[in-house]
Amino acid sequence: MDFTGSHILSIQQFDRSSIERVFAVADDMEPYAARERVTRVLEGAILGNMFFEPSTRTRVSFGCAFNLLGGNVRETTGFETSAIAKGESLYDTARVLSGYSDVICMRHPQSGSVEEFAQASRVPVINGGDGPNEHPSQALLDLYTIHKELAHRGRDVDGLRIAMIGDLKYGRTVHSLSKLLCKFDNVQVVLVSPEELAMPDYIVEMLREAGHRVTVTDILTDSIQHVDIVYSTRIQEERFASKDEADLYRGRFRLNQAIYTQFCEPNTVIMHPLPRDSRADANELDNDLNQNPNLAIFRQTDNGLLVRMALFALVLDVVHLVDKYSHEVSWSTVGR
Amino acid sequence: MDFTGSHILSIQQFDRSSIERVFAVADDMEPYAARERVTRVLEGAILGNMFFEPSTRTRVSFGCAFNLLGGNVRETTGFETSAIAKGESLYDTARVLSGYSDVICMRHPQSGSVEEFAQASRVPVINGGDGPNEHPSQALLDLYTIHKELAHRGRDVDGLRIAMIGDLKYGRTVHSLSKLLCKFDNVQVVLVSPEELAMPDYIVEMLREAGHRVTVTDILTDSIQHVDIVYSTRIQEERFASKDEADLYRGRFRLNQAIYTQFCEPNTVIMHPLPRDSRADANELDNDLNQNPNLAIFRQTDNGLLVRMALFALVLDVVHLVDKYSHEVSWSTVGR
Amino acid sequence: MDFTGSHILSIQQFDRSSIERVFAVADDMEPYAARERVTRVLEGAILGNMFFEPSTRTRVSFGCAFNLLGGNVRETTGFETSAIAKGESLYDTARVLSGYSDVICMRHPQSGSVEEFAQASRVPVINGGDGPNEHPSQALLDLYTIHKELAHRGRDVDGLRIAMIGDLKYGRTVHSLSKLLCKFDNVQVVLVSPEELAMPDYIVEMLREAGHRVTVTDILTDSIQHVDIVYSTRIQEERFASKDEADLYRGRFRLNQAIYTQFCEPNTVIMHPLPRDSRADANELDNDLNQNPNLAIFRQTDNGLLVRMALFALVLDVVHLVDKYSHEVSWSTVGR
Repeated sequence: MDFTGSHILSIQQFDRSSIERVFAVADDMEPYAARERVTRVLEGAILGNMFFEPSTRTRVSFGCAFNLLGGNVRETTGFETSAIAKGESLYDTARVLSGYSDVICMRHPQSGSVEEFAQASRVPVINGGDGPNEHPSQALLDLYTIHKELAHRGRDVDGLRIAMIGDLKYGRTVHSLSKLLCKFDNVQVVLVSPEELAMPDYIVEMLREAGHRVTVTDILTDSIQHVDIVYSTRIQEERFASKDEADLYRGRFRLNQAIYTQFCEPNTVIMHPLPRDSRADANELDNDLNQNPNLAIFRQTDNGLLVRMALFALVLDVVHLVDKYSHEVSWSTVGR
Repeated sequence: MDFTGSHILSIQQFDRSSIERVFAVADDMEPYAARERVTRVLEGAILGNMFFEPSTRTRVSFGCAFNLLGGNVRETTGFETSAIAKGESLYDTARVLSGYSDVICMRHPQSGSVEEFAQASRVPVINGGDGPNEHPSQALLDLYTIHKELAHRGRDVDGLRIAMIGDLKYGRTVHSLSKLLCKFDNVQVVLVSPEELAMPDYIVEMLREAGHRVTVTDILTDSIQHVDIVYSTRIQEERFASKDEADLYRGRFRLNQAIYTQFCEPNTVIMHPLPRDSRADANELDNDLNQNPNLAIFRQTDNGLLVRMALFALVLDVVHLVDKYSHEVSWSTVGR
Repeated sequence: MDFTGSHILSIQQFDRSSIERVFAVADDMEPYAARERVTRVLEGAILGNMFFEPSTRTRVSFGCAFNLLGGNVRETTGFETSAIAKGESLYDTARVLSGYSDVICMRHPQSGSVEEFAQASRVPVINGGDGPNEHPSQALLDLYTIHKELAHRGRDVDGLRIAMIGDLKYGRTVHSLSKLLCKFDNVQVVLVSPEELAMPDYIVEMLREAGHRVTVTDILTDSIQHVDIVYSTRIQEERFASKDEADLYRGRFRLNQAIYTQFCEPNTVIMHPLPRDSRADANELDNDLNQNPNLAIFRQTDNGLLVRMALFALVLDVVHLVDKYSHEVSWSTVGR
C-alpha cells in the first residue's frame, strides 16, 4: 500500500506489510508523544477535523496527533450547520471543505458516508468512524497495543491467544480486530457472549479460513484461563428483552481482580475499546482492576495517539522528516 | 479606504479601488492557499472566530485563512454561553472578547449586531454575517470569482452580463453582489425569479442609476442565453402558499446540463452561494453539471479562502511581509 | 507552594507568597498580552481545554493565554460526548484525556469533580470552575486587579477598604475573594445585600478571625462612601419570593454615575465578575458608568489573561524562558 496521498477508509486496505509499516512509524512517534522532543514538520498544514457526530476522545486524539506533528487543526463538533439540513450532498460538502485543509478526518453516523465523502474530496480523508461500519484507526490501535504488549513478553501477534467478550454482534471493534487478525498466523480466538449477541457467522468463518482456531462459549471463567489478551466490550441493556435478562448476562461477563487472580495466567493483558461502564452494578471491568499493571486500557488510548500520528505522517509523506524538523522541549514535563 | 486597523462590516465601505486592492492581495495569497509555500507572518496573533450562529463552512474558512497566515484561532460555535441569556449587552461581550484577540470575525443572527459589537471592540472586527443584513466577505468572493473567471477569458467586470436566478427577494448574496456591481461600468443584469420573490425595487433602482441595463423575467431559458455568468440561488418551499406552487416555480428555475448545452453560450460560468439543494426533485443546479468545467461553485469557496486571507493581511497590515516570513512546504501535497 | 507540575484546584492552596509570585509573573506576561512581543516558549505543548459546561469567555481566555505562550489548544465545549452518558467515570475520562495533552483546564458543573479528575490525571489540571465550588483563576484575577488598581494609587492590598454588593449568599466570586483577603492585613469589608442573600456566617467569621473589620448593611449609599473598591455582583430574580420583591432589592443595589458622583470618593474603583445584567430595569452597574475611568470591569478580564498565562508558565516551569524564546511582533497593532 502506498500511503502518500491516500484515503484511510477501511482496515481492508491494510495487508500485513502495511500494518507493520504503520506500527514501525508509530514507534518512531514515541519521543514526540512522550514530549521528549518537539517537531515542526507539519507547520502550516491544516487538519479538517470534521466530526459530524460527537466523539470527544477520538476528535481530541486526532487533533492532538496533528498538533504534535506541528500542524493546525480546524474542526466541527456535530451537525451544527444547516447545510446538510438544507439538502446539501456529501459531494458538495466534501468539495468545499477539502479546499480548506490538507487532510480531513471525518466521523459521520451513516455507514459508507465517509467513503462517499472521500470520493469527492480533493485531499486525503481518514475515516474517524462511519456509524456501525468502519473506524480503522481504532482497529489499528487495538492491534498495535496487542503487538506492543506481547513484544514486552518476547512474543508476536502470530500465535496470539485472545478472548473477546461481551456484545460481539454489534461491537464494531471486535469485528474489525478479528478481520485484522486474519492477516496473521496461528491465532486462537475464544468468543464469549450471550447467544443473542454472538459474533456474526461471516467473521467466525473468516477467522477459520485464515487458519485460526475459534472457540465459542458463554462462560467467562472458562474463556480467560489460557489467553494472552482479554478483550472486553460493553453489553448494552437495550439489546435484551428485559432489564432482568440484561443483568443476568452482564453479571456473567464482568471481570474483577478476584476473578482475574483466580483464573487468568499471571501476565494476561486486559483491553477494552472504552468507554467502559463504571457503575458498580454494570461495569464489565471492575474499578478494582485499575491498579492491575496488566490493565492496558489507557495504554490503548495512548497508542491511539501514536497510530494517528503515524497515519498522518504516512499520508502526508513526512516520516523521514519528522526528526529533521525537531528540537528540544522547552517546558517541564515533570507533571506528566 | 485605509484597511489597517479597520473594521470590515459592510460592502458599502468598499469603493472600486478598495475592491481592486482586495483582489490584488487575494492573488498574492494564492501560493499559500495552494500550499506552495508556508508563511509565519501572523505567528502569535489570535483570531477570535465568534460564531454566535452556527455556520461550519464560513467559520472553517475564516479559521483556515488565519491559520494559513501563521496565526492561531480561538472560537465559539453557537450561543453556548449563558452570558447573553443573563442579559449581557453586546457592548460588554465586545469589550471582554476584544481584550483576548488581535482581530475578531463575528457572525450573529441579528441585523446590526456586528456593527454594534465593533463599536465597542478594541480590535478590528470582520462581519461574518449578521442575519439578513451583511456578509461582506461572501459578496467579495462572489465578485472576485467573476473577476477571475472573466480574466481567464480576457475580460473584466466592466461589461459583464449576468443572470441572477431564484429567490431574489430574500437572498442576501444577490443583494450584496448587485450593490458591488454598481461600482463597475456597463453591466447587464437579468433578474429571474417568481414575482413573489422579485428583487427589491431599491436595488433595481440602484443598478439602473449606476447606468446598468436591468431586465426582469421569470423564464429561465430566456435569461441564460446571452450572459457570462449564471448566478443561481435556492428557492425555499416555505416562501410559497403551497408545496405545489413551490414545485411549479422550482421546476422552472432548475438548470441541468441539457438546458445548459441547449441555451447557454459555450463558456457561461455557473455560480451559486451554496449550499445548493441536491435532492433530485429540488436541486436548482443538477448534479449532472458537476463535470461541467464552467461550474465555478467550488472555485467560489476556494476564492473565499483567498479573500479572507487578504482581508486579514490588509487589516493587520502584513501584505508586504507575507513572503518575507515564508518558507518551503515540508509535506507532500500530492494528495491535494 | 511549588508550582511546577502541580494542579491548581483551589484558592486554599495559595499562601501570601504564592499569590505574590503569581502576580509578579502576571506582570511579566504584560508585553505578550499587549502584543509588544511574541513568545514561542510553549511551542509543541497542548492545552486540553475541557469545558464540560459551556462558558465562552473563560474558555476563550484560557485558550488565548496558552496560545500567547506559543502552545496549541484542543478543546471541548459541553457534554457533547456520550461517554459520560454511557456511565464512564471521571477517573477513566481523566486517564484518557491526560494522555493527550500537557496540561488540562477543566470546567464541570459538579462540585469536587475537577479534584476527582485531577487525582486520576497524568498531567497538571487547572480548575476552570466546578459548579458552586471553586474557580481559582477568577479569584486570583479579582485580587490581582485590586492589587494593580491600588498600586496605581501608591497603595497595597494591606489596608484595603472594599464593599461587596449584591448576592453574597450564592456568589462564588465574593466567597473566594473574601478567603483570599484573609491572607492580607487590616482589610475593611462592607457587606451589602438583602438579608436573604447575606454572606454566609463562616466567611464573615473567617474575615474577622483574620483581623479584618466587617460591617453589614443593606443600604448601598452608606456602604460605598469610604471604600477603595466597590465589588458589585448580580442579583437574580429567582432568588426571591416574587418579582416585585426582587425589583425592590435590585433598585436599592444599582449603581449609576449620579450615585457614584454623589457618594463615592473620587478614585473609587468599580469591579464586577461579569456578566453584568445590562437591561435598563435590572442593571446593577448602569451603562452610564461605561465612560467612568474607574470602572475596572474590563481591566479585570484583561487581567484574567495575564493571571492564566502566569499559571500556565508556573505549572510548566517556563517563567525564566518566556523572554528567551521571544521575538518582535510582525503585524500592526494599531487596531488594538
